[in-house]
Amino acid sequence: MNDAANPLSPPGLLPAGLMDLLPPEAEQEAALVEALMEGFCRYGYERVKPPLLEFEEGLLAGSGAAVSEQTFRLMDPVSQRMMGLRADTTPQVARIAATRLGLQARPLRLCYSGQVLRVRGSELAPARQLPQAGIELIGGAAPEADAEVALVAAEALARVGVTGITLDVTLPRMAHALLAAAGIGAALTDRLIHALDRKDAAAVTALAEGAGPIAALLPRLLAAAGPAAQAIEVLRAADLPEAARAIAENAASVIGAIAARAPDLRVTLDPVEFRGFQYHVGVAFTIFGPGRTGELARGGRYLSVNDEPATGMTLYPDAVLRAAPPAPSRPRCFLPLGTTAAAGAALRDEGFATVAALSAADQASALRCTYLWDGHRAVPIQKGTG
Amino acid sequence: MNDAANPLSPPGLLPAGLMDLLPPEAEQEAALVEALMEGFCRYGYERVKPPLLEFEEGLLAGSGAAVSEQTFRLMDPVSQRMMGLRADTTPQVARIAATRLGLQARPLRLCYSGQVLRVRGSELAPARQLPQAGIELIGGAAPEADAEVALVAAEALARVGVTGITLDVTLPRMAHALLAAAGIGAALTDRLIHALDRKDAAAVTALAEGAGPIAALLPRLLAAAGPAAQAIEVLRAADLPEAARAIAENAASVIGAIAARAPDLRVTLDPVEFRGFQYHVGVAFTIFGPGRTGELARGGRYLSVNDEPATGMTLYPDAVLRAAPPAPSRPRCFLPLGTTAAAGAALRDEGFATVAALSAADQASALRCTYLWDGHRAVPIQKGTG
Repeated sequence: MNDAANPLSPPGLLPAGLMDLLPPEAEQEAALVEALMEGFCRYGYERVKPPLLEFEEGLLAGSGAAVSEQTFRLMDPVSQRMMGLRADTTPQVARIAATRLGLQARPLRLCYSGQVLRVRGSELAPARQLPQAGIELIGGAAPEADAEVALVAAEALARVGVTGITLDVTLPRMAHALLAAAGIGAALTDRLIHALDRKDAAAVTALAEGAGPIAALLPRLLAAAGPAAQAIEVLRAADLPEAARAIAENAASVIGAIAARAPDLRVTLDPVEFRGFQYHVGVAFTIFGPGRTGELARGGRYLSVNDEPATGMTLYPDAVLRAAPPAPSRPRCFLPLGTTAAAGAALRDEGFATVAALSAADQASALRCTYLWDGHRAVPIQKGTG
Repeated sequence: MNDAANPLSPPGLLPAGLMDLLPPEAEQEAALVEALMEGFCRYGYERVKPPLLEFEEGLLAGSGAAVSEQTFRLMDPVSQRMMGLRADTTPQVARIAATRLGLQARPLRLCYSGQVLRVRGSELAPARQLPQAGIELIGGAAPEADAEVALVAAEALARVGVTGITLDVTLPRMAHALLAAAGIGAALTDRLIHALDRKDAAAVTALAEGAGPIAALLPRLLAAAGPAAQAIEVLRAADLPEAARAIAENAASVIGAIAARAPDLRVTLDPVEFRGFQYHVGVAFTIFGPGRTGELARGGRYLSVNDEPATGMTLYPDAVLRAAPPAPSRPRCFLPLGTTAAAGAALRDEGFATVAALSAADQASALRCTYLWDGHRAVPIQKGTG
């Protein structure tokens, strides 16, 4: 047991990485999730709600394989088959798109919010239950589709007050395409990929030495990471093999579409980094909050069920909540015994939460009320007096 | 496998009793839950969010024992202890109230929404994942507390358009109090309780014959079920033993407080029925929707952790959704290629969901749009034309 990973709970009360959200955080998170979902619905993304549990074959198919080790399993006593508790929602949405919404015209725009559960937390991310809110755009291969999901996510974040974000674009297939075209063997490929992901330029240079033109190209692409417009120029000027050229041109189209619609959005491009993207093709996205607020969202292009082209973005409401300005809380007005029903109703309609006395022992300040109904109006309660 | 219990899914795709909510139902349910929660917050109930999983000792303590057999268990690989997937939220809120909010002044008003999971569905209620939205008022024993939770629930239902409800009050300890005072043995008590719960007047009369005054009293109380005012009169006129008298007087106080605040609410009282209430003391509530829409909520008075007096109400959003008038859906406006960003933003601010063409192949009607941006305004799309 590692109760240190769950600092908000007394030792032993809750399993590590599982916690209670209390007032006012629980309300703030819920309001934030609904505001994000409203941001998605405005762009025609329609909500689906898959179950928390389903048969593991379905849950772990396709992109679900990436979270297989993180998925709680349990036996279904009804069917005697193994079920999994979802560790990610994207595979479920992909299943819905391919089956129950299989006949609906493409592109299909779906959104979701809900909880996911993971078998183990990490030192940096101890939580084992996480909220997710996301969008999937299924059945569209155009660069404009990738641009749309990035922009819808950025606008949803702006709606909850999170501005100053950075959209980081990576190309998870680029390094493999370069190494394959250069005829690099599997063992050296693994070592180079690892060095590229660590941004270890010295190791990349040493490992690629003598491998032909790629020996000079890889360090140059590694150094190109930064503002997207400049990185795109480096890719354009480079002598890329055909597959890598296609990846670079697609990235340029996506980034161009984003810049055309949101010229003020900070976009970076890191052509040879992975960031743990396991099932993505084309562009992958990470949204970082301002300052040190960390990753707020991840997404990008993938192949859905039956290799249908798809792109999407998952927002992390717990991280977004830490990056968002605090929402004003509802003022609480105490209603002494004998307050009329009409007075209480009028206060609630004005935006107050009313707290009715149930006995003569109930006190406004103990019940954390900030206002008191004096029979005529809501009077602010002065802290430290009375 | 009983796929017949999951009529909305193709056979074998999802476990029985677990289903996907699709557009527009998923959006309708989410909006309804948030409207119910808003109804609770207006009365000073503050949101908490306990985790879906916790150690089984905590989850199954107190009122949680009632759902022990319905609780999925799984091993926590971190602590090597058994965890349960919640089958009810009330025990978690009771835990929070007693521990992390143990020092906060009473009465404590908390609310919650979320999913619960059950090992097996029944023939009448096949769902194994259910949404819940509820309130708990902890640390207040006054009849006004019970009246408040009933009225807050009724008002929350009215906010989502569900009117014409019936609040059914039962007294789960009344029959036991009567039988104990009459010196009835355990075996006969079980049979009488069963007959009372089935409303089998003939069996009650036969079983109670020769048991003294209770032989006449039980059939009279059974027949008293109906409008609360009349049932209260029957209880007042009856010669009740002390414990039963206290239960009846408390019920009269609760019902009186409800009638004073909501004279138009239909309230019934069934003095000797149980309806499966297992851990309730004092009054228990069931809210029935209009017509045949069934149970929308349940609640009542119980003993929380450390026997702290508490009362609450759990609403069933899936049932409420079936009883509520359909919410109007957002009109969808198709944006042809080349539509300006400003035009799209203005439409969204007017309340449209905008669906942007991503390629020349995208068609407004196939994408289920009801409006088309013609470069100047949103034009309604005529069905069956074009």
